[in-house]
Order: sequence, then structure tokens, then C-alpha cells
Amino acid sequence: MAVLDHKRRAALALDVASSPAALDLRAVRREVDAALATFLDAKEQSAPGPELTSLIAQLRTFLTGGKRLRPLLCMCGWYAGGGEGDHSPAVRAAAGLELFQAFALIHDDVMDASDTRRGRPSAHRALAAAYTAGGGPADRAAEHGLGAAVLLGDLALIWSDELLRGAGLTVRSPERVLPLLDEMRGEVLYGQYLDLQTTGRLSGDVDTAARVIRYKTAKYTVERPLHIGAALAGATPRVDAALSAFALPLGDAFQLRDDLLGVFGDPQQTGKSVLDDLRTGKATVLMALAVQRASRSELRSLRARFGKPNLDERDADVVRSVLDRTGARQAVEEMIRDRRDEALTALDHAPFPAAAVAALRDIAGSATARHA
Amino acid sequence: MAVLDHKRRAALALDVASSPAALDLRAVRREVDAALATFLDAKEQSAPGPELTSLIAQLRTFLTGGKRLRPLLCMCGWYAGGGEGDHSPAVRAAAGLELFQAFALIHDDVMDASDTRRGRPSAHRALAAAYTAGGGPADRAAEHGLGAAVLLGDLALIWSDELLRGAGLTVRSPERVLPLLDEMRGEVLYGQYLDLQTTGRLSGDVDTAARVIRYKTAKYTVERPLHIGAALAGATPRVDAALSAFALPLGDAFQLRDDLLGVFGDPQQTGKSVLDDLRTGKATVLMALAVQRASRSELRSLRARFGKPNLDERDADVVRSVLDRTGARQAVEEMIRDRRDEALTALDHAPFPAAAVAALRDIAGSATARHA
Repeated sequence: MAVLDHKRRAALALDVASSPAALDLRAVRREVDAALATFLDAKEQSAPGPELTSLIAQLRTFLTGGKRLRPLLCMCGWYAGGGEGDHSPAVRAAAGLELFQAFALIHDDVMDASDTRRGRPSAHRALAAAYTAGGGPADRAAEHGLGAAVLLGDLALIWSDELLRGAGLTVRSPERVLPLLDEMRGEVLYGQYLDLQTTGRLSGDVDTAARVIRYKTAKYTVERPLHIGAALAGATPRVDAALSAFALPLGDAFQLRDDLLGVFGDPQQTGKSVLDDLRTGKATVLMALAVQRASRSELRSLRARFGKPNLDERDADVVRSVLDRTGARQAVEEMIRDRRDEALTALDHAPFPAAAVAALRDIAGSATARHA
Repeated sequence: MAVLDHKRRAALALDVASSPAALDLRAVRREVDAALATFLDAKEQSAPGPELTSLIAQLRTFLTGGKRLRPLLCMCGWYAGGGEGDHSPAVRAAAGLELFQAFALIHDDVMDASDTRRGRPSAHRALAAAYTAGGGPADRAAEHGLGAAVLLGDLALIWSDELLRGAGLTVRSPERVLPLLDEMRGEVLYGQYLDLQTTGRLSGDVDTAARVIRYKTAKYTVERPLHIGAALAGATPRVDAALSAFALPLGDAFQLRDDLLGVFGDPQQTGKSVLDDLRTGKATVLMALAVQRASRSELRSLRARFGKPNLDERDADVVRSVLDRTGARQAVEEMIRDRRDEALTALDHAPFPAAAVAALRDIAGSATARHA
């Protein structure tokens, strides 16, 4: 389905809309989870030795409870691109994206030395605990956990590649999907590297902070999953462009929300500490705006706390009040609203079937208004 | 060239032998290095931002000075499999294997907290130094270096995939090459995980130690590169089996030599500290044999030193003398000789062109008798 004329597309839109299963996001989620389970079962059975079982179990635990945002977007991309018939290649690709995200998060937590993720111990913490529980010496547990988490992330990365490649090869257009994967992986690592470079330095450089989220999140989390799904459906370049027009502002808004939740969120709901971002000194747009607008004494106050590993709840309160008083928090809320609106406007004339448009609207709403 | 009859193969053998460039290992090395340089140049030019330049520069430095064993074996596999004509797909795959090895070493050094590699600072050390040199706060340098090295390894991994996949797709048999890659990557990560699990525990379990090197080295370093080269040439299963018969004993011998050099080597020649393996407590065959043969007092002596982060030169001397007195060192030397002989014998009737056999003999000699 490389090209669809307008009549054909209108008919397809009706088809999809009249088939509620097609864009039932909960059903999609179940299918993606089933694909992940099947893949990991096969890996467990073909493992060279029993030792991998415990590592795979850690991966399964880690995969529980994610938002499945990238898989859902991949499936939306498939439908937006006019995908019809057997959508199992897109489901496998979607599952591959979730494994890739597991890789990214596991390594990210190692890099940030984060203790929790999704309300549970982060992978390196869980692996350290498992090591001690298995009789390993306690004084090696942290080092072992770190090493095992690096490996677990590596494993998730190469397995995501297998799932994604396998999905692409069963359909017409591996030569379109694989370069997108390469782009996606390069972009997110570039974003992570920028992130790492800027972390710990209090700065008013909003442009660089915006650049980090463009690569680390907007392209990686939203645009590329949509493109990959669309490529599997053999979508036209016009569809790709319309997906980007939706994806990039939405992705920026998603990360801006994440940054707000990282400082103002409820840990019970986010599953993440509300001190981690401040302790590691994440150079967010939020923080850059605050620096730009801060008085001299507010700046001193930020400087004394931002990026300090021993920052406590009281310090965090002081930082929060500066973010409020300078209007930085409010400015970020406005940026989120503007970008969400831009994304929604882009959908108004997008050449997608109606059911895909409706699903993307839903996702745009929940990704920008969420509490977790 | 899926099937070659004997006459055809004999003719080919003569062709290859009469073309000295075909198995000039130094020329092969230059071609692989040129392919790596071309690939990294392209990555630098297409980078989303200038920040990647410094990371790519670190990768180039890291890639300088390796033995290029896997690329050479990949090229030998190509010739052993009857490859002829344009060998550039095999060169690209060989370059991809070297990038994969860079990934493995960079992450390995993070996991082992090794300070040096190939006579220079390990990647996380070099990246920490670059961070401070660029004005980064000194108290964050170690953490930053670690994070950046995890990312640099990730980047090497995904780029190796691009090179390898690109090599496979330009020839007949991506469907043979790509599953081999998946196998190889899974095997080495499994070996690394076993390694990590056993590190730091003094044990007489020779079987497990042998299992680690089978996966971590014999299959990954020797067998799979040969298979990948052969697959690119469209080799027969008979060639694959003959390559395995050579590769597995040689790979075991290669790692056994590495383990000896890790304790008895000259750091000036190996480029690695001679204390690292003992400090981290590498559970080698060498150590397992010593434990099996040690008297009670020798065992106490090992236990007091093995895996202790503060082990010094004097402690290392004590451990070395136990390895000598128990005959463990000598036993490993004998194992190396036996396995090298087994590998060489396997070549006697291998269905490879003569030039490939000669190159493999050379490699077997230098891989097992080396000092670095």
C-alpha cells in the first residue's frame, strides 16, 4: 500500500473505525505484552545455560508496568500509514521498541545512579540485591549490580534489534525500516550524551536544554516509533511528514511534563524519587528558565543546592519555591499547552484514517496531562 | 557459491594462493582500518551536533592498536569459504566485528573498573579526564566518565550493527549472516554474565571456568568471525563444521594464554596491569586448577589475597608462587599446547583453499604463543 488515493483512504478510515479492535489501545497493549512474553520465553528456552534464567526474570520484572508509549505509537503509525490486514509485524516491532526502551532506562539509571524506577528498585539495585541473596559477598554487591545492569541493558538492546529486524524482514520494506532504526538509536544516544554533558551544570541555556529533549525524547519516543509503524505499513512521505508535525511538539511537551513531574510530582504516582533530578543536576528547560529569571539571591540559592548529592527534602522545597516565584514552572506549563495544541492542530488535516487520528488525540491528551 | 565441487575448490585454492594480496594479513588489516575510518568519518559528518565529535575521537583512539584478531578471522572465513572477487562486504563485516569488540571492551572495563587498556587509560578513565579538561567539575569526573563510557559502548554496539548489517545486505545471504550475528552477540553476553557471576569467588570449579572461556572467547572471538566471513562467501555447512573444529580449541587456547598473561605477563607488553585480574578475582581455569591442587596453607594464602582490591605486587608474587608450586601454571601451558595442536590438526584435512589454511596456521601460532 505504497500510495492511497483519497477515496481509498476515506473508505479505509471507515473500515478501521468500524472495527473497534483495530485501535483499541488496551488490546494493542496486551498484544505487545504477549509478543514480549513469547520472545523472552523463546530466549529462555534457547539459552546456553540456566544462569540466563535469572537475568531474563529481571528483565521481565523490569518490563512490567511501563506506559508502553512507544509501542502504542508504533501501532498508531501503522494505522496512520494505512496498515491493514495482519498487523503482527507491527506488534513485533512495537515489542522491540519496548525492549529498546528497557535498554535505555537500565543504562540511564546506571549513568544517573538512580535507586528507583517505576516504583521499584532500579535494575542495578535489584541485581545487587539478587547477588547478595544468592550468597554473593556483600562488599561486592554494588559493583556486581552495576556490571550486571550494564550487561542486562546490552542484552535488551541486542534482543530489541532481533525483534525489530525480524518484524521488518517479514514485510515489504526492511530497507525503509532498518535505516529508521539506525536513525532512532543514533538520535537517542546523541540526546543522552548531550544530557550527560549538561548534567550537573547550572545554566540558563534554554536552547541546549530544548535540544536535549528534542533528541532524547521527541524524536526517539514519539516521532520514530510512529515512522517505524508507518514504514511497516508502506506509508507515503506525506504521511511521514504529517506524523512529524504531530510528533515533535507532542514529544517536547511530553518531556517538559516529565521534567515538571521530576521536581513537583508525587513519587507515589511517578514511581520515581522527586529528589533524583535535583541531586544529579538535570539541566532541564525548567531549570534554565529559572536561572534566566532568577534574582541574584535566588541564583545563589539554586547554586547552593542544584546538583548536590546530599540535597534533602528541605533543599528541594527551596528550589521548588524559586521555580514557582520566578515563573519558570508556569512558563513550562504554558510551553506544554502550546506544544500540545500544536500537535493537535497538526492532526486536523493529517492524511490518516479517522481511528488513528482519534487514538493519537487520546495519547496527546494523556501524555501531556499525566501525573505519572 | 553455495556449493563447490572438489575440482572447482582445488582450482580456487590455486587462484587464491597465486594472488598473494588475498591473504596478506597486513593488507587485510589496512583495509579493515580504512573501512572503520570511512565509517566513522561519515558518522562524524552526519552527526546531529558537534558534541559527538569528541566522543567519536575517543572511539578512534580506542580503536587504535588492537590486534584486529576478529576482523582477520572474518577475512580468513571468507577465503576459507571460497570467497572470491570483490571482498569488500567481508571487509565491512570485519570492521563491524572490530567495532563490536570495542563495545565489549569498553563495557568490560566499566564492569571490571579497569584503569588501563592497550597501554592507555580505559575509556571511562579517558572520558573522565576529558570532562575535567573541558571544565567539568572534578568531583563529578568519575561518574561522568562511567556514564559516557556506557554510552560510548552503546554507540559502538549500534554502529557495529550498521556496518555488519550493511555488509550482509549487499550480498546474497543476509538471512545466513544476521542470525549468526544474533548468536554471536547472545553468546558473548552470556559468557560475560557467567564471568561476572563467578568473579570474586575463589573456586576449584574448572568446568565452569572452561565454560566461561568457551562462550566469552572461543565462540565469540574465533568461531563466529570465521562463520560470518564464510557465510558472506556462501560457504557450505561442511566448511562451517571444519571452521568450528579449528576455532573452538584455538579460542580456548587463546583465552588460556590471556589468563596466564593476566597474572604472569609483562605489563609493558600486554598494556594491562598484572594486578587487575587478581584484584577483581577473575575465576580462571588457572586459578581453579590451583585451588584443586593447593595444600591447606596454600589455599589460605590464596584466599587472603584473591579478589582483594588492595592486593599489591608482593601479594601477587605470593599468588604466582602458589600457581607455580601447585603446577597449575604448567598445566595451563599444557592445555594451551594440546588445544593449539588440536586446532592445527583440524586444518590438515579442512576443505579450505591452501592460502586460507596457511593464514589460519599463522594466526594459531601467534594467538597462542604471544606475549601481548
